[in-house]
Amino acid sequence: MDRGRLEAFSDGVFAVAITLLALNLAVKGPGNHNGTLAYQLAHQWAAYLAYLISFFTIGIIWVNHHILVSNILVVTRLLLFLNLLLLLFVVLIPVATGTVGDYLAAGGFDAKLAVAVYGIALTGMSVGFSAIAEWSLGEGRTRVPVPPDKRWEARIRFMSGGLVYLVVIGLAFISAPAALGLSGLVAVYYVLERTPALGKTGDEASGQDT
Amino acid sequence: MDRGRLEAFSDGVFAVAITLLALNLAVKGPGNHNGTLAYQLAHQWAAYLAYLISFFTIGIIWVNHHILVSNILVVTRLLLFLNLLLLLFVVLIPVATGTVGDYLAAGGFDAKLAVAVYGIALTGMSVGFSAIAEWSLGEGRTRVPVPPDKRWEARIRFMSGGLVYLVVIGLAFISAPAALGLSGLVAVYYVLERTPALGKTGDEASGQDT
Amino acid sequence: MDRGRLEAFSDGVFAVAITLLALNLAVKGPGNHNGTLAYQLAHQWAAYLAYLISFFTIGIIWVNHHILVSNILVVTRLLLFLNLLLLLFVVLIPVATGTVGDYLAAGGFDAKLAVAVYGIALTGMSVGFSAIAEWSLGEGRTRVPVPPDKRWEARIRFMSGGLVYLVVIGLAFISAPAALGLSGLVAVYYVLERTPALGKTGDEASGQDT
Amino acid sequence: MDRGRLEAFSDGVFAVAITLLALNLAVKGPGNHNGTLAYQLAHQWAAYLAYLISFFTIGIIWVNHHILVSNILVVTRLLLFLNLLLLLFVVLIPVATGTVGDYLAAGGFDAKLAVAVYGIALTGMSVGFSAIAEWSLGEGRTRVPVPPDKRWEARIRFMSGGLVYLVVIGLAFISAPAALGLSGLVAVYYVLERTPALGKTGDEASGQDT
Repeated sequence: MDRGRLEAFSDGVFAVAITLLALNLAVKGPGNHNGTLAYQLAHQWAAYLAYLISFFTIGIIWVNHHILVSNILVVTRLLLFLNLLLLLFVVLIPVATGTVGDYLAAGGFDAKLAVAVYGIALTGMSVGFSAIAEWSLGEGRTRVPVPPDKRWEARIRFMSGGLVYLVVIGLAFISAPAALGLSGLVAVYYVLERTPALGKTGDEASGQDT
Repeated sequence: MDRGRLEAFSDGVFAVAITLLALNLAVKGPGNHNGTLAYQLAHQWAAYLAYLISFFTIGIIWVNHHILVSNILVVTRLLLFLNLLLLLFVVLIPVATGTVGDYLAAGGFDAKLAVAVYGIALTGMSVGFSAIAEWSLGEGRTRVPVPPDKRWEARIRFMSGGLVYLVVIGLAFISAPAALGLSGLVAVYYVLERTPALGKTGDEASGQDT
Repeated sequence: MDRGRLEAFSDGVFAVAITLLALNLAVKGPGNHNGTLAYQLAHQWAAYLAYLISFFTIGIIWVNHHILVSNILVVTRLLLFLNLLLLLFVVLIPVATGTVGDYLAAGGFDAKLAVAVYGIALTGMSVGFSAIAEWSLGEGRTRVPVPPDKRWEARIRFMSGGLVYLVVIGLAFISAPAALGLSGLVAVYYVLERTPALGKTGDEASGQDT
Repeated sequence: MDRGRLEAFSDGVFAVAITLLALNLAVKGPGNHNGTLAYQLAHQWAAYLAYLISFFTIGIIWVNHHILVSNILVVTRLLLFLNLLLLLFVVLIPVATGTVGDYLAAGGFDAKLAVAVYGIALTGMSVGFSAIAEWSLGEGRTRVPVPPDKRWEARIRFMSGGLVYLVVIGLAFISAPAALGLSGLVAVYYVLERTPALGKTGDEASGQDT
């Protein structure tokens, strides 16, 4: 089992999940009970917002997943199952996004619960990612090892997203829109940040293709 | 992050999106209210048309995406996010195509709005593609750089599709079928044109596999 | 554009299409109007049959597609669009299979039309495949060229499937089950035949991986 | 046809199947007849359980598929069709999982039948995997051949999962939850076991990427 296949399978899952996201934006079609298309499209504002946040959240986790995995030297069964743990939550995101889109505009406890469930999926994804990152800190597992004195710095960086997602879950029960907005801020933060996981800069992480 | 993974992920998204397109052609199945199969199939003419246009539109953008990306030397975080911007709109195409198929035959404002929404998805896709192409014009980013005096020619070529898609959006509010037909003409044009993005001919762009 | 990316994209489309096939077997779930699960499962016999035939039909075309493409030296824009023509019909197969599953058991003209539509999708797929195979007969396009005196033999072999699918369309209007059975016989024939496309034996076509 | 393409296609199918699993967890959306979101989420406990078991079952078969295939030297048409036999049942798992999720909580004969159908899909998958493994025991087919005196040991190992799945089918008619639990225990067992198929240890099976 080499790294290439771990990446190919994960890429496939990320690609299917990110494409399924858009299916949540389908309107019901013409029909007496559905209202005009303009009404349906306007009514879906929460679905557009949730789509945007989820699209970039999956996109970022894909970018960071590959920066992390491309540095890994040995692929063990444990790593494969930690990767499955990550994917277990990634594939939940399209469904959770659809639930937010369906319930956010209605408001009330259902809206709060929908965003809390969304936050659980994001937290689980973050736990899965952190588990892979923690595994990669072990001796001899990466091409460019993280020096021992930098490990806590690295841990704090890759765990901080998960901590914010925990806040999203709690905040959802106070204000569903605020909690969804916070998960959007995490996406914006990770799009803008220049330092990817485990101490390499964005420029070092990229490079010329062979 | 090397170019191969950018391509693998994008290929996955393109492949899923192009396959989901066909799901819009599903009939409702037997049932008292659905009419005969012949009736349902004949009633779906707009869905077939939209399917054909979208299939070749995604196919062409896939072809041009790879000609463009295969020329790129450095993969930066910025490029990855520009690529995500492109994919953000590509995955909307199956849903927008389904909306056109559902509403075009009904006519009226809903039909116009459906094609305008479709035009927005195509315009967004074109903006994403142009952003990647513009990025690739920077110094040292491509194997075969575009000479400075040819850059505006290249820009005009890769931006012209987007400009026509803007016309599709406007034209939709005058005549939905004409606007859909125009987006189909863009697809026909790009299938027939011999000069792919950034100054390489179709024959130069292809070549013997290693 | 090298051969590897043509294959990766096609593999993605084949993989999604073959997986979507199974979604046609979903039952409606518990509910007063749906009947017991046993009733629903027994009622779906046509869907199982259509699933089996379509699964192996797509599987075979995937096998033959790769034997054909692995022999190709130059990837041109024309080849890419011939490949898109093939995929245009491959992605229709899940929907056409679902239509057969829904309408075959009901009998009558709808059942005949459903199988005829299925035959059209298979014929189109076969035309797309034949177009790629015909293209590959040109000078300097394949690693192991087909000698001129063997070209008609090769053409007859790769076109014969398409001719039988034309018969499926016509036969469907006489007997829907017989026409579906004939398309199943094509799949059985191609699973059992030892000579893949363009004159290479199964053993020559395979080989040790690097 | 080299091994790489067999893997790419299989990876695609595994990735789509494992991602489609999550779609079974979608709630019905707001509506007078659907109940609150909390009610719907709580009502879906069987769907969560089935999702978890199926996710890790497909994940494990993916891990073992690649350990098995990475050892194979020659790819023949027979192997390709044995692989299709495996995938024929893998793609059924999302649908079968959805059926379990829909019917388990209702209890009665429908719940038993749903788990039995699920067991049939798992048994078929296991038969397909065993067929590939049996094929790989032939002379000259693998890089690290299994010595003749170890073949029965290897056979027993890769067939034991299938035997337990046969028990799942039978047990389903006595107790649906117990049968589903047994299929979950198989997943837990394979996650924890250290000896992958055909006599290589987990550490030997993994290794440094080039």
